[in-house]
Parts: sequence; structure tokens; C-alpha cells
Amino acid sequence: MVELYWLQGAVPETAAPTAEMPPWGETKVVGTRQPRVDAYERVSGSAVYPRDFTLPDMLHAALLLCPHPHARVKAIDTSAAEKMPGVRAVLTGRSPGADVPWYGRGDKAASRLFDDHLRHEGDEVAAVAAETPDQAFDALRAIRVTYEELPFVLTPEAALAKGAPSLHAWGNRYGEPSVYERGDLAAGFAAADAVVEGTYSTACELHAPMEVHGSVAKWDGSRLTVWDTTQGVFAVQQAVAEALKLPLAHVRVIGPYMGGGFGSKLEGGKYTVMAALLARATARPVKLFLTREQEFLVTGNRPANTMKVRVGAKKDGTLTAIDYHSMGSGGAYPSGAGTAFLATDLYTCPNVRAVDENVAINAGRARPMRAPGFPQGAWALEQALDELAGKLGLDPVALRLKNVPTVSQRRGNQPYTSTGLAECLRQGAKAFGWDEARARAKGTGPVRKGVGMAAALWGYGGGPPSTAIVKLFTDGSVNLNMGAADIGTGTKTVMAMVVAEELAVPLDRIQIEHADTGTTEYASPSGGSKTVPSDSPAVRAAAVEVRSKLLALAAEEMKVPVADLALDGGSVVSRKDPAKKLAVTAVPGLQRQQVLVGVGTRGPNAEGKVVSEFAAHFAEVEVNERTGEVTVTRLVAAQESGRVMNRLTFENQVRGGLVMGLGLGRTEERVLDRQTGKMVNANWHDYKIPTALDVPAAQEVLSVDPKDTLCNTTGAKGVGEPATIPTAAAIANAVANAVGVRVKDSPITPPRLCALLHARGKVG
Amino acid sequence: MVELYWLQGAVPETAAPTAEMPPWGETKVVGTRQPRVDAYERVSGSAVYPRDFTLPDMLHAALLLCPHPHARVKAIDTSAAEKMPGVRAVLTGRSPGADVPWYGRGDKAASRLFDDHLRHEGDEVAAVAAETPDQAFDALRAIRVTYEELPFVLTPEAALAKGAPSLHAWGNRYGEPSVYERGDLAAGFAAADAVVEGTYSTACELHAPMEVHGSVAKWDGSRLTVWDTTQGVFAVQQAVAEALKLPLAHVRVIGPYMGGGFGSKLEGGKYTVMAALLARATARPVKLFLTREQEFLVTGNRPANTMKVRVGAKKDGTLTAIDYHSMGSGGAYPSGAGTAFLATDLYTCPNVRAVDENVAINAGRARPMRAPGFPQGAWALEQALDELAGKLGLDPVALRLKNVPTVSQRRGNQPYTSTGLAECLRQGAKAFGWDEARARAKGTGPVRKGVGMAAALWGYGGGPPSTAIVKLFTDGSVNLNMGAADIGTGTKTVMAMVVAEELAVPLDRIQIEHADTGTTEYASPSGGSKTVPSDSPAVRAAAVEVRSKLLALAAEEMKVPVADLALDGGSVVSRKDPAKKLAVTAVPGLQRQQVLVGVGTRGPNAEGKVVSEFAAHFAEVEVNERTGEVTVTRLVAAQESGRVMNRLTFENQVRGGLVMGLGLGRTEERVLDRQTGKMVNANWHDYKIPTALDVPAAQEVLSVDPKDTLCNTTGAKGVGEPATIPTAAAIANAVANAVGVRVKDSPITPPRLCALLHARGKVG
Repeated sequence: MVELYWLQGAVPETAAPTAEMPPWGETKVVGTRQPRVDAYERVSGSAVYPRDFTLPDMLHAALLLCPHPHARVKAIDTSAAEKMPGVRAVLTGRSPGADVPWYGRGDKAASRLFDDHLRHEGDEVAAVAAETPDQAFDALRAIRVTYEELPFVLTPEAALAKGAPSLHAWGNRYGEPSVYERGDLAAGFAAADAVVEGTYSTACELHAPMEVHGSVAKWDGSRLTVWDTTQGVFAVQQAVAEALKLPLAHVRVIGPYMGGGFGSKLEGGKYTVMAALLARATARPVKLFLTREQEFLVTGNRPANTMKVRVGAKKDGTLTAIDYHSMGSGGAYPSGAGTAFLATDLYTCPNVRAVDENVAINAGRARPMRAPGFPQGAWALEQALDELAGKLGLDPVALRLKNVPTVSQRRGNQPYTSTGLAECLRQGAKAFGWDEARARAKGTGPVRKGVGMAAALWGYGGGPPSTAIVKLFTDGSVNLNMGAADIGTGTKTVMAMVVAEELAVPLDRIQIEHADTGTTEYASPSGGSKTVPSDSPAVRAAAVEVRSKLLALAAEEMKVPVADLALDGGSVVSRKDPAKKLAVTAVPGLQRQQVLVGVGTRGPNAEGKVVSEFAAHFAEVEVNERTGEVTVTRLVAAQESGRVMNRLTFENQVRGGLVMGLGLGRTEERVLDRQTGKMVNANWHDYKIPTALDVPAAQEVLSVDPKDTLCNTTGAKGVGEPATIPTAAAIANAVANAVGVRVKDSPITPPRLCALLHARGKVG
Repeated sequence: MVELYWLQGAVPETAAPTAEMPPWGETKVVGTRQPRVDAYERVSGSAVYPRDFTLPDMLHAALLLCPHPHARVKAIDTSAAEKMPGVRAVLTGRSPGADVPWYGRGDKAASRLFDDHLRHEGDEVAAVAAETPDQAFDALRAIRVTYEELPFVLTPEAALAKGAPSLHAWGNRYGEPSVYERGDLAAGFAAADAVVEGTYSTACELHAPMEVHGSVAKWDGSRLTVWDTTQGVFAVQQAVAEALKLPLAHVRVIGPYMGGGFGSKLEGGKYTVMAALLARATARPVKLFLTREQEFLVTGNRPANTMKVRVGAKKDGTLTAIDYHSMGSGGAYPSGAGTAFLATDLYTCPNVRAVDENVAINAGRARPMRAPGFPQGAWALEQALDELAGKLGLDPVALRLKNVPTVSQRRGNQPYTSTGLAECLRQGAKAFGWDEARARAKGTGPVRKGVGMAAALWGYGGGPPSTAIVKLFTDGSVNLNMGAADIGTGTKTVMAMVVAEELAVPLDRIQIEHADTGTTEYASPSGGSKTVPSDSPAVRAAAVEVRSKLLALAAEEMKVPVADLALDGGSVVSRKDPAKKLAVTAVPGLQRQQVLVGVGTRGPNAEGKVVSEFAAHFAEVEVNERTGEVTVTRLVAAQESGRVMNRLTFENQVRGGLVMGLGLGRTEERVLDRQTGKMVNANWHDYKIPTALDVPAAQEVLSVDPKDTLCNTTGAKGVGEPATIPTAAAIANAVANAVGVRVKDSPITPPRLCALLHARGKVG
């Protein structure tokens, strides 16, 4: 679990440079703007995503989900469904092999693949495999389920109330509140010249990936092959092997392309196991994908959180105390809902208390979603700091600059390999024209302008070491094998650039095989912005090994010492005498050996150091005081993510982060009906992700590169998560700056803003 | 080319044991009888061979072949074919991108993918891709080809005759005759007490694999994926990349299962390139397989050879001189047709001359076929020695034992790592009851009994070093990646046994991915009996690396030195204190790292040593002097192939070799019609491979294991080829022993034998 690294305060793993593998200096390919190596396939539609995947003789499956927020299955009659045209198998918890422990296997929150106790709308009841998708969905309607409806709870407060219905045998609390403390909170607040306090909340957001979740499963004897839309094939392999009691080696998971995950595809899904069971029952390949509506109900969410923040500082802005309390819900099944990390480590502060509570409710469970817990934490902390700056009469940027850390207080005061936060703040402010924009008139008409900013940090969980393999063929073209998924972030392109850098081979002569538990080596799931920093050192090491082998073979032939040789434009060249060159394809040893193989594994971290990324976002908004409409007119993101590997995909990923942050701040919210307990906006019309019209054309993405030579051998950190953490808070601060009222509950909708303005007597 | 290693006298590569990787002593798994790891898939029909392979939206292609033995295309009209129902593309040499150099690329024998000069019945004229196979074949009939028929030649003698039509610009001779000489031939014969001389011939045999040749081709952008029935995916990759001018990395060749090749599937086929061109033209996957009849015409053969042999020896049997001349034909396109190797290296003989000639004729080209050149050479040499033994009054076994070599005379008198020939002769004779059988009455009726024997050696070309990868998962199950194909010989099972030996893991917990240029490392094509000796050292090295890593992690936990640890039954056990044990799944480092990866590459040979296998076959026959019918009643094969890896597949492979040898000796012959130049038996009814009724139930397979600790780190040599080399000669010698006439031309058919008996006045 990505968030666990954080909640446990673990030091993320990457691979420190060594004498044998020093950090890069100047690079030729890395850092340039490169379109994706698979751009044609993606754009032309010829890329085969698992949702598109078809096998001969394949059956189509559909899922029957619980329509109630809380119920118990009294009886299921599948006999009519089994007789429907084209139906080949109907699967319920009573089917052979289908009674499988699932959520929280081994721990007290255990549930089953199909559980008679249905804890939220969308809990799985049955699955059907038929010759066509329509036949499968028709058959679902013929399944007769007798439900006993139960009382339900939709908020942590309700779930903790006396007499509330219990979701689990152990009640509704997911363990004791997690408490982090350092220093002396009371003394800290006593020493403060100003204290602000507030309660903030964020709405539940949904991952809403383009490609819905699902799998195709196929058996060959006792061997199961799964094509899955996933961020981590090895995680799916493990989940499926465990559920079906198969040796890991007998479960091959392939993740060719995937259409977005944002954390919701980090682990194995029930649908995968169901597809496998249906395939085994029918001796046919089975494809099981969720519908769009089901996707909204069961594949996870960023939980709603309520955060109480109290912050104190000296007059000069020096923070003295932070008291932070977060209440969240993992939904019906255990999952992290913590948001406290930023409060404990983003700024230097000696006295901190941070509490995370997590309570079960009758709704879909939380899953890690792009920087899990962090945008919520920033929403609360960074608005509180904004208020604090106002109270102290300080510029919000200046307040933050006063408290920039160089060590991770949470992690034993270990120093960061680099801390780009100050530079993000300075360069971002400069690019945004912060001082001028703040000074500008806010307007006198109903449309007021405002500016705001917020900061963030993120680290990444490296997980177990990745291994990558590079093969150089006799014609100088190259094959790269790696276990990592490309979750849409351009991983394949970045890794190809690493190979191109070391082997001086054009990108279009590099072919990548990836994300296949059978044929690629281990990589932990792509999430937590860790893929590039964790896997690029392995890829680099593999490429360097191939280069070393090649140069050694060339040295033999050229009678030049290896140390004097370099690769350039398809040739081995003597550094001392550039006239001495030998085409790579003419190196006799390469032809003799046919393929040169290099294997690279990520090494350990630099001892006692912490790797983190930093960011500062700046927003400009226009707020119509009559309608409550907020238009984000400008965004600037300054990101410190170490070396930028591919300028183009870097910028695109930051833009994507800004858009998701804008969604949190402005539009996105899962709406559960209080009467029925059902989600009323489980579709892309009513669940509002930002559209092109919501996103400002004026966006600027800055990279603040501290030339971090300690973090790892490529100098790259991650960018996916830090690019989305502070955006919503910056927008909220800009709204407050524009109209003088602070919207503490996300999203900032017109009704909500109007109500606040009205309360202050300013509307109309 | 497998045969080239031999014709060039190269020393085959394997991997000598070293101090770090000593030879195995006693083994627990290796050497036992193990059913194939994929037996269920193979027997149940669930194994997907390329011929079975289907992709969604796939087109089916069919080939139009030249019906004449020698012709020129004057015109092709495909317009009617293009309008036929379901037709999506018609490909000829005039199609875009289809004018590709093919046979003998770069050398003087160059031809094209589609050549207007058609040099044998079966040369490719056009290909059609259509929605269904029937539509494709129907469309072929609508292609109008105007041929100019040319005079043709069907034998080397005719091809070399004055005024013969030329197949190539440079005439019909494939280069100068290859001549090998040592010692003084005249002096050798002068020193001989007895000399025999004779002319022998073998008929052209066809590989006739169960699965016909063909490919499925699919493009993803500029990337081509090919599913091919092949012995070597990397060879196919190279051929296709070269033909289509693609980077090697852009051609992925996958060879999941394959239904027999025997050498005919060692290289890329025209059909593969045609399938790729049709797929590109139609933007659809295309499946192109030959028909059974086409298979007989174009995929290769063991060429017919005519061999003149003169052998001299002293009274005691010491060989003094061998003069050997072989005339063969590579068919219409260059390919090896040599047979001389055995004459130069099987026995100690100081004075040798061996000549191989190779001439083009208007017939399908030769391809390496199980021990290319060797069964022909044995047919001639071993019959000549049989006659010589008779002339000297020596037992044929004794004659051979007198001349057993311990060094390879052909290869600089380098010693063999082991020479099991003498033991093969002794133990084979004993098991057969040679002396008793020779002494037995031959019968007085029309059915006479006889016994015969013959010997052989074989080495293997190792080719470039193979690399294998072994992954140990957290549950102790294992994945093995290797580039080698399993051509039906049980390679997967043997390699899994190697892994099982080193990691003490049951075979059913080992999963193998293999033969995929994209995802497995390099292995040269599986042929020449080299797969096990060349690749098993790489697999062993990979498994040993995993074991080392695992034991190191366990040592940390167990506080026991690594050197004292061993793997046993899923646990790490202290050798000194067996009570100290730790389940593999409980090794914390394994859980931490998720997957342990080991990479093994085959190392170099022992300096100055030659690795060869040896064999002696013994046959008993009954010959009906009235009908000329020969029944092989008993066969004993004594094989020295180093360590037997899997007793079961070893025996089966030897039995298969005996059956193919019986085919050469008794039944198989390509028949070309002298009037039309066309093959008259291009089908499995008229081309007679032995059936169950032809094969004696009484077969015995002996392994003579010299405990060769020098050849490589697993001690295994190959067995595929040596198991078929001497069989036919042994049968011919048995026939001569039975009826006193020697059939020098294969196969020994009733008419041929009757004619000889008749000539001697013995029939009827």
C-alpha cells in the first residue's frame, strides 16, 4: 500500500549513486522533449488495452451488485439465469471454489469474494459468463436475490454514534486513532504570537479512470494467464495466487496498456478472481469488466475527510505549534484514510500533534488516489497557514519560506538529499508575478479577482528492488524488459531515454516489453510517483552493463583501452582520437555473441538520507459574487522533482495534476443520498471531473532542479503526486483572497460560496 | 547453419566446469524418469501450436506455387483474384515491398522472395489473404500466370552434363568441391592387407513434421509480432528483420509450441515474410501456413547422396586409409549436402581423403535434417567397414574396437572430454547378445535372419552463449525464462529438472517462459543436439545464483554460515544441525525483495578439448527371400551422451531416432518423376514414413555414461542426432548378414532387394 509507507514514516527506497555508478552530469537525451515512444499506437487506437482485448472463444461476464447500502443475502436463486440463452456459468459465493476470503485477508476485517453480508451499494452478489455481453447482462436480471435490508451509516460521525449499525464484528472503527507527536504542543502554542484554528473538509472523490476495471482470464492446464488493466502486475499476481491457492509461478499477469488508474489499480481486484473462476468453470477464456456505473461504486475513492487544524507562529512567521486532527473513512472495507503527514513534515515546527481516525461506513471503500491523503492535508494545512499569514500580516510566501525544512523531522531529522521547497516558492512566485498580482486591484464589479498559493512535499515508496534487462541486438537495436507498468505517465518513453542516453541509440530502435510477471523481472506497482526514481536506476544499470560489454569487445578489436572509448551515433569512438571509430554493428564480438545482455537491479539508498519532492502552486481566480461561480484563470506550478527526464511528459503530468487538483477544489464530489444510502451521481454526467472549459489556458510549469546527485543514479524523483497536492488549497486561498470569505469544504460550488457570501451579507 | 560447424571442423561450444561451478556429483532429480512438464497440455490438445493460433480479426492466407520444375514467369494477372469474395490482398513479386532478396542473400546464389525464375516445383509465385481459408484457396485459382517452361535437371550428374540448363547465373556447381586430406593416401592403401571399395547412395528424405510450416503475423505500428512454428525464434527474427529492413528489436518472434522440425525449422521462412507483408497491406493479422503437399515441396529435405568409399586395413583390423567421395545436391538453392565428416573422424586412421561435392538441381532445396550428412555418411562408411570386416574375417565389432579414437583427428588431435565409443560397442553388443545372434542359424526357409551393427559420433554446435533467467517468488515457486525452443524433445522438462535440482523445488511449481525474442534472452536455434548441453549450464548458473542469494538471506536470519546451508524440501537447512531449518517462504529477505532473480550465461569451453557423443546400434532383421520384404525385429541402441538428464525423454528420443533411421534404411524416398520433374509422392500416403507396424517392439536403449566432468557444468551432451545416425547402416548390414547380398542404395525396398537376389540367382 502506497500510503502505508507514509503513515509509517518509512524512508522511501531509491538507489544512491556509487563510485561504480556515479550520478549523471550533462545528458544528451534525458531532459529533452520527447513524444511518447508509443504515441502512434495510443493515438491511432491500435494500442490494445485490456478492455479491448479479445481471445478466440472468449466468454463475456457481467456482475450483479448489491443495490442496497447495507443488506444481508437471505437466498439466491440462479436457476432461471442458468437457463438463459448463451449463459455458460453463474457464479455466487455458493459456487465451488468461490468462497474465498478477500478484504483484509488474515486480519479482523475479513470479508469474502462474495459475502452474504453486503456492506455497501455495489458489493458483489453474483457473476455470469455468457457468449455475448448482452446475454450476460440479461441473465443478471433473471437472478432472484432475497435481501434483508439493514440500517446504514454514511458518515464517520453516524457510524460512531451510539446504537449505530455495525459493519463488522469488531464494530466500525478501523483500529485505534493513529497519533503522532513531537515536542510540547502546549508550550508551542504558549510561545505563539498568533494562532488560527479551523475545521476543513474535503468531499469524497473518485478515481474515474478512462478505462474501467477488469480482466481477461484464461487457463492452460493448471496455469492461469490474466490480462489486466493494472498499475502492478506482480501485485495482481499475488492477490490472485493467494485467492485461488495457486503457486505464484502459475499465475501470469500481463498488463500491456492501461487506461488510467490513479491508485485504484494498484492491487488485484475481485473481478480478476471471478473471471478466473468463471474461466475454470467453463474451460473458456472469460472477459469481465465493470460497467461505468459499477466502476464508480466499487473500485475505490479518495475518502472524505474532516480536518481540525490549529497552528501557531511567532510574529516573524516562525511556526511554533501544529495541532492536527483528521477524521476519515476507509469505506466499508479497511483502507487508509489518513491525511496527517504534511502537517508533520512540510514545515519546520518543533511542536506537533497529528491524529488520524478511520471509521467504516456503508459506502465504497477508499483506495490510494494520487497522493493519498496529501491533497486533503494540504487543503486544511495550507488554508490554515494562509489565514495565519493574514493574521500576522505576512505574505503567505514569506511565511512559508520562513519555515522551509532541510531535514525530515518525521524521519529522525535525516537530511533530504535535496530540498527544493524554497526555490519552488521563490521561482514560482516570480514566474506567477506574485507580488504584482497580490497588489493588483480586485475589481469593483461583481467579478472579483484573487490570487492564492500553497506548497507540498511528497516522497515515494520504492518497495522491493526492481530489476531491468537490456538486450543489444547485432544491428544495434535494443530491447528493454522491465516489470513496471506505464500507467499513462510515459514510463516507457522515459526508460527508453535512459537506455538511449547510455547506449547512444535512437529511441525508435528501442523496443520495450514490460509489465508481465512471466517474462519481466520484479517491479513494485507503479504508484506513489515512484516508478521513475525506483526503476530508472535499474534500467540505467542494465544499459551500462551492456555498454561495458560492448566497449570491452570493441576495445579488443580497436586496440584502444576501454577507458578511452565512448559510444556516439551508432559507433564506438576513441575519445582521444575521434578518427578511430568502429560501427556498433561491426564489433565482431557482438556478431559472435548475437545478443549482449545487461541486467540491472536498483541498489540501496544513501545511508541516513531522505528523498522527497517539493512543489508550490499559484492560482489566480475570478469569482462572481452574484452567482458564486469561480473561474480559475491562471495556474503556475513550480516542482522540485530532481532531474526532469522528459520535459514533455513532465509538463503534461504536472498539467494533469493541476487538473485533478482543480477537480478536488472546484467540482468533484461523490453524492450519497441520505434517504436511500445510494450514490446518485455514479456516472460521468453527474460526477463532475473538470472539462477543458474548466481548465485555464494560462498554465505554467516550472522545474526547479537542484541537481540532486545523492538521491539516486539518475537524479530523478517522482512528479505524479506532488503535481496535484497543493492545487486545490491554492485555489481556495485565491478565492478567499478575491472575496474575503474562505470556503473550508470542498468542492467550492456556487451554492456553497453563495451561502458564505450571503452570510457575510455580500451577495447580489 | 548447424552443418557448417561440422564442415568447418569447428569445436562445438558448451561450458566447461570451473572452481566456482564444479560439475555435479550425484543428483536427486536430474537423471530420474520425469513425464514432461507440459504433458497435460500436449496430450489434452490444449497446447496452442502456431498452426492452431488464432487472433481476432485474423485473415487467412494461401500460397500459389510453381507447378513446373523449371520455368520463368512471363506475366501474372491478379485482377480476377482480387475481386474474389473475401479477398483482402494478393501478393506477388510486383507488390510494394515484396521484391526482397532471399536465398543466399549477399552471395552469388541470390534469389528473391518471389523470383520470376522458378527453379523447382514449389517455388513461390503469389500469396493471397482472405477472410477464410477457403476464400484464399479459391482466389489462388483465379490468378493467371503465364509460364515459360524451361528444361530441367533432377540429378547432379545431369546438372553437370554438358549443355545442361543452368539454374543460376554461375551455373549449377555450389562452389568448388570441399576436400579434406591428411596423411598419405597411397601409402595407406599400400600398407593395407585388405581393401574394399563400393558406391553407396541414399535417397532424398523429407523432414515431414506433424505441424506444417507457417506463421501468424501482426503489426502494432512499426512493430511486427510473429507466432512461428520454429526451432529458433532468434533466427527467424533475424531473417524477417533483414528481409523487411526492420530493426531487430522491432521484430518479436514467439514460438510457444512446435510440432516437429528435425532441422527444417531452424531458420526464417518465406511464408513468415509473406504473412508480414500481407498483414501490413491489410492492417490485419494474417495466418499463413503451408498445405501438407506444399510442405513436402518447399521446406527442405535430407539430400540424396552418392558416396564412393575405399577403405584399407591391416589383418588385425587397423585402418590404414580411407578414401571417400560424396556427391550431393542442395537442391535449387544453396545448402549443405556434405556427408564426409564421419569418414574423417569416427575412427583412428592416419591417411584420409574426403571430398564433398554439391550441385544444384531443379528440386526443393536441402535443409539440415537430424544429423545432417551423418546418416548418409554412416550408410556408406559403416557398410564398407562391414564388408572389410568380412574380408578380413574379423567380427565387425572387433574391427571397430580396434580403431576407437580418443582424440579428434579432424580438429587438431584435440582430446575428447570423453570417448564412450568403445563402451557403446561393448555394452551394446552385450545387451544385444551379439556373439550368440551372429552364431545363430540364419534359417533354411525363405525367411532368413541376420544381424548387423554400425557406429556413430556427433558433436554439437553451441553457437553464441545462451542466457537464462530464474526467478524465485515469495511462495517458493519458480519461473524460468529461456530463449530455447522445446522442439518436442522435452527441453522444458529437462531445464525445469535442472532448476529443481538446484533449488529443491517440485517440478510442478516451476513455470517456464521460453522462445520469445522480446522477453527471453538469446539462445541459438534448437538443433544439432545442442540445446541441453549449451543451455542447461546457463539454466544451472541462473538457479545457482538464486540459491546463493536465498542462502545468503537465510544465513543472516538463521545466524548460520552460508557454507553450512543447503536447500531441502522447501526449507533452508543447516548441514551440521538439521534441526536448524527455515522454510524458504519464511526467509524474511525473500519477502522483502519479493522476487530473487538469477541470471546465468553459458561459459566458455574447456581449453583444447572436443565434446562429442558416440553411439553404436545393433539390428536384427528377417528377410523374405521370395518377396524381398525386410522386417526389423530387434534394435539395440547404446548411446554415450554424457549424463542422462531425464531417463524417460532420453529413451523416447533415442526410440525416435531409431524410427527415423529405420525410415532412411527401409521406406523413405522422395520420388521425382523423370518425365515431368514433379514430385509424385508429396503426401503422407505415398511418402512412407515408418508406421507402428514397421517398428520392432523389441527395442533397447542403453546409456553409456562416462561421467564426463569436463564437457560442461551439467555433464550432459546431446542425444537427438547420434540416436539416428547409425541405424540404417546397421539394418543394411543385418540384411547383408541375412541373405548375403548388400543393398547399397537406400531405401531397402522389396523390388531393389529382389533384383539383387535375382541377380545372384537366389530368388524364388
